[in-house]
Amino acid sequence: MPSESNWLLLISYDGTNYNGWQVQPNQPTIEGTLENALHRLTGQVVKVHGSGRTDAGVHGLNQTASFSVVSEFSPEKWRIALNGVLPDDLVVKHVQQVPSDFHARHSSVGKRYRYLVCNLPYRSPFSRNKSWWVRKSLNLEAIREASSYLVGKHDFSAFRAAACSSPNPNKDLREILCDVKPWLHANLCFELEADSFLQHMVRIMVGTLVQVGTGKLKPEQMKGILESRDRTQAGLTAPAHGLYALAVRYPEDRIEWPDELMDS
Amino acid sequence: MPSESNWLLLISYDGTNYNGWQVQPNQPTIEGTLENALHRLTGQVVKVHGSGRTDAGVHGLNQTASFSVVSEFSPEKWRIALNGVLPDDLVVKHVQQVPSDFHARHSSVGKRYRYLVCNLPYRSPFSRNKSWWVRKSLNLEAIREASSYLVGKHDFSAFRAAACSSPNPNKDLREILCDVKPWLHANLCFELEADSFLQHMVRIMVGTLVQVGTGKLKPEQMKGILESRDRTQAGLTAPAHGLYALAVRYPEDRIEWPDELMDS
Repeated sequence: MPSESNWLLLISYDGTNYNGWQVQPNQPTIEGTLENALHRLTGQVVKVHGSGRTDAGVHGLNQTASFSVVSEFSPEKWRIALNGVLPDDLVVKHVQQVPSDFHARHSSVGKRYRYLVCNLPYRSPFSRNKSWWVRKSLNLEAIREASSYLVGKHDFSAFRAAACSSPNPNKDLREILCDVKPWLHANLCFELEADSFLQHMVRIMVGTLVQVGTGKLKPEQMKGILESRDRTQAGLTAPAHGLYALAVRYPEDRIEWPDELMDS
Repeated sequence: MPSESNWLLLISYDGTNYNGWQVQPNQPTIEGTLENALHRLTGQVVKVHGSGRTDAGVHGLNQTASFSVVSEFSPEKWRIALNGVLPDDLVVKHVQQVPSDFHARHSSVGKRYRYLVCNLPYRSPFSRNKSWWVRKSLNLEAIREASSYLVGKHDFSAFRAAACSSPNPNKDLREILCDVKPWLHANLCFELEADSFLQHMVRIMVGTLVQVGTGKLKPEQMKGILESRDRTQAGLTAPAHGLYALAVRYPEDRIEWPDELMDS
């Protein structure tokens, strides 16, 4: 009988019809849908470990998940079999076998998120569930100046959800980009990369930066908000449906994905 | 009492939930939804003339429609009032008053369509209802060579639906482009422009060109297919959900849209 082996999935999903990542009774979730698919294929009860727990409506572009199972499937057989039983809004792009101590979340050394905004006077029908419609014209220079106060190693308590259970509010925010894009479903793209993120950290940061863009907040206020460590000082939480889990970083000697698989 | 005035709309829609343009009993259609909105706002039975009749599932990016109504609304009031009663997958981007003899279809002198393909070994969850998933890798050079046989003034009977009621199969196909794009919902973009198109002409052309791309047809066969004037000689009809009405051309002295309104 084959012994248990450990696997890593690279997945992409449209989060619109899911109640987030984490399994909940009688709700469609990404984790539950993957675990059901694995149960259907193997007959085993398999626990799937995601790289992070995305909120309801959040999308995944190059998200990762790991699981251990007794199986002799090849990676390509796994990919084809899983896509054969998964719904078409949740796709496995790549499968690889990993050492038994590998864990999609614990082994990660960085994460990158994208947040899409549709900044137009009218709501594009193609932005529905895919980006945040912001009607007022945004000042990108002000947003970039505000972002510069946030980058670096800080206590990000001002940008965490009240319910956030992370023991450590100190994160290394490595980059914030805010660029104009010629996309049908969005024309403004934020990208944020850190060692890891607190709950709602990306959404609160983007919500606050957009309020800088509309002129409601001044860029230099960002410094005081950060130092306050007080969530009530920061701005609003941007809606979930503009957020995309874009990349999960692992030590290069452990995982290297083929570049052509990376949605961008 | 104000007299009847003639109006032109620039609209954008996600066609996924519509049974095409033309009014049908007990079916959601673009025309019917616009006419209902106008009835709700004016109390009048208003006939909306679209620039063309898109199939079920086809999208509109810069589609046009005209109508006559008794009203003293300003263009901007029309836009806001219509968007207030339309569903969020059908948006009015611009409204302008036009001369009484203007007609969205009869006055047009050209049309441009886009067709999106997601050419990946796996089906992207973001391509659902937005582009045609083609798994086999496509040879773009072969597609471009095949396209060169189609451009120009020809009898396009080989590329028209059996049910097409157009009296004249001769069209001036001004351009076919096929370009790689870095879009989430598609990575290959066809654009076709002509004075006007026969029913299913874009979809049959793209279906046939994709079969050239996979190697099932040779580029030089396009010449014989065109000359046959026989639909059975051409390739398959590409699915509706990859098609976007991209632009409607009018004489420049009649209509000029603000560039920033043009989705691209």
